[in-house]
Amino acid sequence: MPFIMDAWYVAAWPREVSGETPLARTICGEPMVLFRDEAGDAVALEDRCCHREMPLSKGWMEQGTVRCGYHGLRFDGTGKCVEIPGQPNIPPRARVRSYPVVEQHGWIWVWPGVAERADPADIPEMFAPNDHPDWSSSGGTTYVRCNYLLISDNLLDLTHENYIHRTSLGNQAVVEHPITVEGGDDWVKVQRLIPDHEPAPFWKAALMNAKGAADDVRCDRWQVIHYRPPANLALEVGVAPAGTGGLDGDRSQGVEGRNLNVITPETEKTCWYFWALARNFSREPEMDQPFADRVAQIFEEDRAAVEAVQVVMDRNPGRPVIDINADGGHIRARRIVDRLVAAQDRTAQAAE
Amino acid sequence: MPFIMDAWYVAAWPREVSGETPLARTICGEPMVLFRDEAGDAVALEDRCCHREMPLSKGWMEQGTVRCGYHGLRFDGTGKCVEIPGQPNIPPRARVRSYPVVEQHGWIWVWPGVAERADPADIPEMFAPNDHPDWSSSGGTTYVRCNYLLISDNLLDLTHENYIHRTSLGNQAVVEHPITVEGGDDWVKVQRLIPDHEPAPFWKAALMNAKGAADDVRCDRWQVIHYRPPANLALEVGVAPAGTGGLDGDRSQGVEGRNLNVITPETEKTCWYFWALARNFSREPEMDQPFADRVAQIFEEDRAAVEAVQVVMDRNPGRPVIDINADGGHIRARRIVDRLVAAQDRTAQAAE
Amino acid sequence: MPFIMDAWYVAAWPREVSGETPLARTICGEPMVLFRDEAGDAVALEDRCCHREMPLSKGWMEQGTVRCGYHGLRFDGTGKCVEIPGQPNIPPRARVRSYPVVEQHGWIWVWPGVAERADPADIPEMFAPNDHPDWSSSGGTTYVRCNYLLISDNLLDLTHENYIHRTSLGNQAVVEHPITVEGGDDWVKVQRLIPDHEPAPFWKAALMNAKGAADDVRCDRWQVIHYRPPANLALEVGVAPAGTGGLDGDRSQGVEGRNLNVITPETEKTCWYFWALARNFSREPEMDQPFADRVAQIFEEDRAAVEAVQVVMDRNPGRPVIDINADGGHIRARRIVDRLVAAQDRTAQAAE
Repeated sequence: MPFIMDAWYVAAWPREVSGETPLARTICGEPMVLFRDEAGDAVALEDRCCHREMPLSKGWMEQGTVRCGYHGLRFDGTGKCVEIPGQPNIPPRARVRSYPVVEQHGWIWVWPGVAERADPADIPEMFAPNDHPDWSSSGGTTYVRCNYLLISDNLLDLTHENYIHRTSLGNQAVVEHPITVEGGDDWVKVQRLIPDHEPAPFWKAALMNAKGAADDVRCDRWQVIHYRPPANLALEVGVAPAGTGGLDGDRSQGVEGRNLNVITPETEKTCWYFWALARNFSREPEMDQPFADRVAQIFEEDRAAVEAVQVVMDRNPGRPVIDINADGGHIRARRIVDRLVAAQDRTAQAAE
Repeated sequence: MPFIMDAWYVAAWPREVSGETPLARTICGEPMVLFRDEAGDAVALEDRCCHREMPLSKGWMEQGTVRCGYHGLRFDGTGKCVEIPGQPNIPPRARVRSYPVVEQHGWIWVWPGVAERADPADIPEMFAPNDHPDWSSSGGTTYVRCNYLLISDNLLDLTHENYIHRTSLGNQAVVEHPITVEGGDDWVKVQRLIPDHEPAPFWKAALMNAKGAADDVRCDRWQVIHYRPPANLALEVGVAPAGTGGLDGDRSQGVEGRNLNVITPETEKTCWYFWALARNFSREPEMDQPFADRVAQIFEEDRAAVEAVQVVMDRNPGRPVIDINADGGHIRARRIVDRLVAAQDRTAQAAE
Repeated sequence: MPFIMDAWYVAAWPREVSGETPLARTICGEPMVLFRDEAGDAVALEDRCCHREMPLSKGWMEQGTVRCGYHGLRFDGTGKCVEIPGQPNIPPRARVRSYPVVEQHGWIWVWPGVAERADPADIPEMFAPNDHPDWSSSGGTTYVRCNYLLISDNLLDLTHENYIHRTSLGNQAVVEHPITVEGGDDWVKVQRLIPDHEPAPFWKAALMNAKGAADDVRCDRWQVIHYRPPANLALEVGVAPAGTGGLDGDRSQGVEGRNLNVITPETEKTCWYFWALARNFSREPEMDQPFADRVAQIFEEDRAAVEAVQVVMDRNPGRPVIDINADGGHIRARRIVDRLVAAQDRTAQAAE
């Protein structure tokens, strides 16, 4: 399946893109070099010198420009060649493609498609907690050898917690309580509410520390998954003492997390999975790393699973599968992606 | 060349298939998961959950059933789904393919083809010494990156002993004595008789220990190779004091081994080579491992050779070769395989 | 692009080809085994036994012949089978292809094309300093994962010194002085003359040691690149005290090196890069290794660069690039190669 080119994807964490060392990253099959120009703004160019095809990311930075490491051509952040060693004139076609870049919600986003159609307002607002004073957030990147949509599927069905994560998150309640699925042209919402139960150790500790709950506290728990295409997923998760209104919208007595996920295709069968956990409890900065480490460990279990699935799918692409009740969310999400890809194909054909 | 699907292949040693951990193994291009059901019988299913294509071998056993490690579907030894988490009903098409399995002659055999045509009586009786009170047997498995028939070719022409194994078995007598070749529709027999010679160290020691032979004993030696398609080979090998009838059928004064070999294709260019050495001498159990180690070491030399040949063949498939006198056995065996493959193709076409 | 088959290529250093161990090397896609016959002459055969396709290089030498390590067939240096174990007669078609071989200028050259067209006089005389009493020479081999012509391109444009080798050879003067390019049907000459400048440390030391120059000596420097197809390059490099005639042909007051390079294709995307540095200064034998080590280190930087370029080219073969002034030399060389390949194709078609 082709990539959805006209979309924002997370390309990197801000700390990865510097004015000193160019960063190579391939997004939707497009090899890019990311760096910061003299103003400190992140930029993305095609990672190929237009002279003899050397990756610019193998070169080095000079005052906000990147110097090719082979014959020394130098390019600014717009992709324009600003120096050719040994000759005074620079032909106008000496330039490389540049991509729209925006730094927002604690991530650097690139738009691999048609630049004119890139609107920063389309970056999903639901990721704001990654970089917002009301929240503490920490995260990481997991490189996964599968099609990026397999991770989107995975996040839209949390029954897998009880199996993939049986030794870490194992959770029979998640299996026993049904989900509700809603959706529109460009969104899916999957909700599971688990009233009045003995909380899992992770949540009990959070509630005791942050809200002074008693050791025998019983809880209401919610999992609300928000999906936006291509593969943007924000999970609202949290607990409140049973009967205090947490399931009806008043979460003031509870503790909350936002599991923020963007899966960025590298190639058709590899992707960069950017994730963060924002929390409104245990907000001490020294807790950032432990929370990120914990999530990273759990996502390793998902990585192993979806990579194993990819291997099986490759043996016989398109072979039918059976669906079960828990699949409602990701089936809707897949339909949105299919529709966007089809629309993109029609646009491309019309343009020919 | 296609695999011969309607045939029994060794899939594993009995000790490899347990009721606790599922075993993944690909036979004739078919990925299988092997385990034992509640009765302790070995079973083989397709190694792919019918829900989201997770390999079942990545899951775990629960009372003779295998639980998928992704969303928790559970399958019994017949491939039937017996549980779908989060929903009471199980649609009838929630099942995976199962393969006929038989445990016999110390090996677990599977039939990758049409189940209705599987008859355990077709498992070659010549492998009985692998699991028979008259014999002591020990063996192992060698994974080889070549087409399985290259190993069958190798075993049908023992002149290679003097070259591949020149430092381990090097044996000019094997080269100097001619072979006789016989065969029928589904068998080949290659025989070499070496009368009245000074025995190789291995056989001299065996004869002295087991039969009290003198240090200067002279021997008659036999090598009789029995082939059954696709790649089943039992080699009768042994020596007796010269003139005591060993070459005429009375081996009572001699010592005997049976080199038992089944080569099971994994893919077109990789295979599992299952082998054992049964012996009627030095039958102390503590000798099992030394004999197996010795054979494993020698088969490493064969592995290196046939893998090198595969690389050359891949460069130019189907390029002609010249034949020599020693090739009589494997040329006959190849003809049997060609005929079986052609017959299978005709059956498949007729069924279309 | 096809290889130019009717050409001499360096296959090995003389020390690599012995009468004791056969050497495997693939030249222009042709797997060869090199060894020395009873007379001590280097020979090259196809590295594939004509019986069962075992590489002959996995066998061993016996009195100037090579014995196949599988079933023991033995071949002499002309490719004729001289022994088949277990049978007296040797059919005439039991032979393998042999290739013309010449040992000259300190290298072993093979001709992968039509043997009748091989003329040792075509080996470029410009490599004589590799094995000549007036020079001391030392060198090595670098295995590179790129098309061999990328290395030829690289050597024909030395402006790269200032970028690829910025930490080792970095040299602004090379960029600032223009080149002159000349060429004919089968040759290219690229010349850069750098008058009256402060010499680089390497050359200053050479001039002081060999000619007693003063510490503040100023220099004239020359770089003259001689190219012959397919990928033979001899670089005349050196310095002389400024104004002593070095740029006009009288190099008697200076020091000189000859950087000798033959790039031999292995496959379309891998090659053997044979190189040597001949020098007429610091001729103590104990300096051979240090000079070779220094060149090897620098060529590692080139290797990394051209391998990176190959990866980019593979993504989109034939995609246009822009040329700059410094490209004059290798553009001419590429045209010669294109013409030779086209002529070869016409010959092949005419022969059909």
